[in-house]
Amino acid sequence: MRAEVITIGDELLIGQVVDTNSAWIAEKLNEYGIELFQITSVHDNREHIIAALDEAFSRADIVLTTGGLGPTKDDITKHVLCEYFETHLIEDASVRAHIMDLYKERPDVLNRLTATQWLVPENALILENRVGSAPLMVFHHGKQILASMPGVPYEMKIAMEEQILPYIRDYESKITNYKSEHILHRTLQVSGIPESSLAIILEDYENEMPSALHLAYLPKDGMIRLRLSSYGEMSKEEVDTWFERLKGQVAPYLIADADEPLEVIAGNLLKQKGMTIATAESCTGGKLASLLNKHAGSSAFYYGSVISYDNSVKEHLLGVPESLIKEKGVVSEEVVRIMAESAKQQIGTDYAIATSGIAGPTGGSPEKPVGTVWIAWTTPKNTYAECFHLGKLRDQITDRACVKALVKLIQILRTE
Amino acid sequence: MRAEVITIGDELLIGQVVDTNSAWIAEKLNEYGIELFQITSVHDNREHIIAALDEAFSRADIVLTTGGLGPTKDDITKHVLCEYFETHLIEDASVRAHIMDLYKERPDVLNRLTATQWLVPENALILENRVGSAPLMVFHHGKQILASMPGVPYEMKIAMEEQILPYIRDYESKITNYKSEHILHRTLQVSGIPESSLAIILEDYENEMPSALHLAYLPKDGMIRLRLSSYGEMSKEEVDTWFERLKGQVAPYLIADADEPLEVIAGNLLKQKGMTIATAESCTGGKLASLLNKHAGSSAFYYGSVISYDNSVKEHLLGVPESLIKEKGVVSEEVVRIMAESAKQQIGTDYAIATSGIAGPTGGSPEKPVGTVWIAWTTPKNTYAECFHLGKLRDQITDRACVKALVKLIQILRTE
Repeated sequence: MRAEVITIGDELLIGQVVDTNSAWIAEKLNEYGIELFQITSVHDNREHIIAALDEAFSRADIVLTTGGLGPTKDDITKHVLCEYFETHLIEDASVRAHIMDLYKERPDVLNRLTATQWLVPENALILENRVGSAPLMVFHHGKQILASMPGVPYEMKIAMEEQILPYIRDYESKITNYKSEHILHRTLQVSGIPESSLAIILEDYENEMPSALHLAYLPKDGMIRLRLSSYGEMSKEEVDTWFERLKGQVAPYLIADADEPLEVIAGNLLKQKGMTIATAESCTGGKLASLLNKHAGSSAFYYGSVISYDNSVKEHLLGVPESLIKEKGVVSEEVVRIMAESAKQQIGTDYAIATSGIAGPTGGSPEKPVGTVWIAWTTPKNTYAECFHLGKLRDQITDRACVKALVKLIQILRTE
Repeated sequence: MRAEVITIGDELLIGQVVDTNSAWIAEKLNEYGIELFQITSVHDNREHIIAALDEAFSRADIVLTTGGLGPTKDDITKHVLCEYFETHLIEDASVRAHIMDLYKERPDVLNRLTATQWLVPENALILENRVGSAPLMVFHHGKQILASMPGVPYEMKIAMEEQILPYIRDYESKITNYKSEHILHRTLQVSGIPESSLAIILEDYENEMPSALHLAYLPKDGMIRLRLSSYGEMSKEEVDTWFERLKGQVAPYLIADADEPLEVIAGNLLKQKGMTIATAESCTGGKLASLLNKHAGSSAFYYGSVISYDNSVKEHLLGVPESLIKEKGVVSEEVVRIMAESAKQQIGTDYAIATSGIAGPTGGSPEKPVGTVWIAWTTPKNTYAECFHLGKLRDQITDRACVKALVKLIQILRTE
């Protein structure tokens, strides 16, 4: 089966909101074996929505839309879908009861605009939106289907997982002439080699690869993800064989053989060892801490951090001598080593990582230009430190510093 | 002028990468007075790219593509554009010199695949990609133009700002029958009122609004952004008058009269006062710190943080008595007040914010379910604390906690 996503909202086309929904939906569809052919973002405009629906239905079996379902005037998706599927709005008692229950402790929300949310298209199947007031609507268009979901990411995700995807799977099983392709993606992650050099190493491999297999290079923040994809023509065993061979080819640079975030890989290694970690951050300012505690279960290995943005914090909470900062500079091997060792000791963990760098735009010098970052890792056995040059842009520098910090942590956890 | 964006890459359609480029481009185009009509994401597939180009050229004056320009086999955009514009690749001496210079300290990158990057379409205008090896290509298609940029966000942004946008402005001024519309957006931010209640307050206002003016509601994380937009038909003064009236209507809930991030508003208020801030974070785990130091110039007001994820850190670094945690629980008014006051004193700032909550998925209880978050703000004069219930999902809870923390900080900075 082939799907398309249409995201609806002026805010997407003036850059006020980044469309994160599409990538999330894409991932889920792929897991389900449904190919996502195209993503289209359109305005809250009747003609534009209708044109996008026509185009999507000319290519896809399933059309998923997000957005435009709020109770305010600017949201028109429900009305346009009524027109498109030649139906009209009727009151739905169960949606009404659900909304009354949802807001029973917030009577201020139960006003006449919220009441328009229990008006639904007569010929649509209505699925429950457990966490919001906008009804989930499914329309049948011959053998094709359209599902309309809210644009708020939290609501859309729950709708998709609990209602829309199970519905699609059920529907698919009834339509005998549709069959999910066996879509397979396997991703590995490498570090420490330029993309073009990697491609030269893999030239023979790529030439020998069957045409049903695709290899993609995804460079980001100093890492490269290599993805093997097969759309229905190869078995899992065949793809696995090619994937193992790929792993062998890139072994010296291999960081992970799955598309897991680096902080998850590091966290799992720490949990396996029963070890804990802290951070002391200057230039990364809490970004590394946020990554380490982003995922559920992180309290098993992540204890805490000292964010020492100002030098006084480095002195007072991390015991970095003022004289050392004066002599060596705050972005130096000596300072970052003390930061790491002090965080480990103060916070009482087995490992600690410290960062100190010049994120810019000001603060650079000829010796230490913007982008210079010192990182230290301290472990039960050793303390390591390395200097990196990570580009010119503030966000780029701090993102890459977190990647460097996690890559080396993973390598240390595997070898030490 | 009307533009469309086509983002090219299988990774977008399997959900491996979120398309952040389109929103950024959209914002820039709007600033330039160019309407972005549609965003389309397509596969690295010849037929698909060609179909998307045909459709985009049927609607828009300017087509911007990102992605598919790497040196590896999976990147085909340059070849497809050659076919589409009926041309072929030739070696470009200045692109070659630029790439040789770019990698002069990294001879490992200067291999034969990188050499394919200085092959460019003969009939394209080549603009310099200052930070990467993929050439920026501009094609003319009658009076329409297409610009092709790399997909790596940092490279795309520099390309767009330094090369593509100035080129478009220059080109536009030569084409007398094209004229930029005077696109105007004004956004304000409100907090503390449901979307539907806000819409009821604004009902008369919306009914009286001229049809050339559009009002959009953008709810997120407990805030609502209200955006007034005019596409060419109204003067700045007229839009300003309507915007001032809108501000008056929502005055009790108004947090900001611009679409600035909350941390920028708070940071500017702190800088105006010459005051400094620290954070002590449990459930938000450094997210609030990262926001406060995200933007250039934040070292003027943000000093540092203690991320006390584990209770031992609350006791040891923030002086929260173990007995108090036992008696009141770690998610309590008493604990969060001490955390804030201690962070302020330890880090030596004028203000501090502390968070302690249950981000889930485990750790909830009937009295304190997942989503319960205590926040404290301490100032030169007072300490305030409030309890919030922020939903059920981990990311949602911590994002909303940061919004609550910043909204109240802004209110305190304005009134105290």
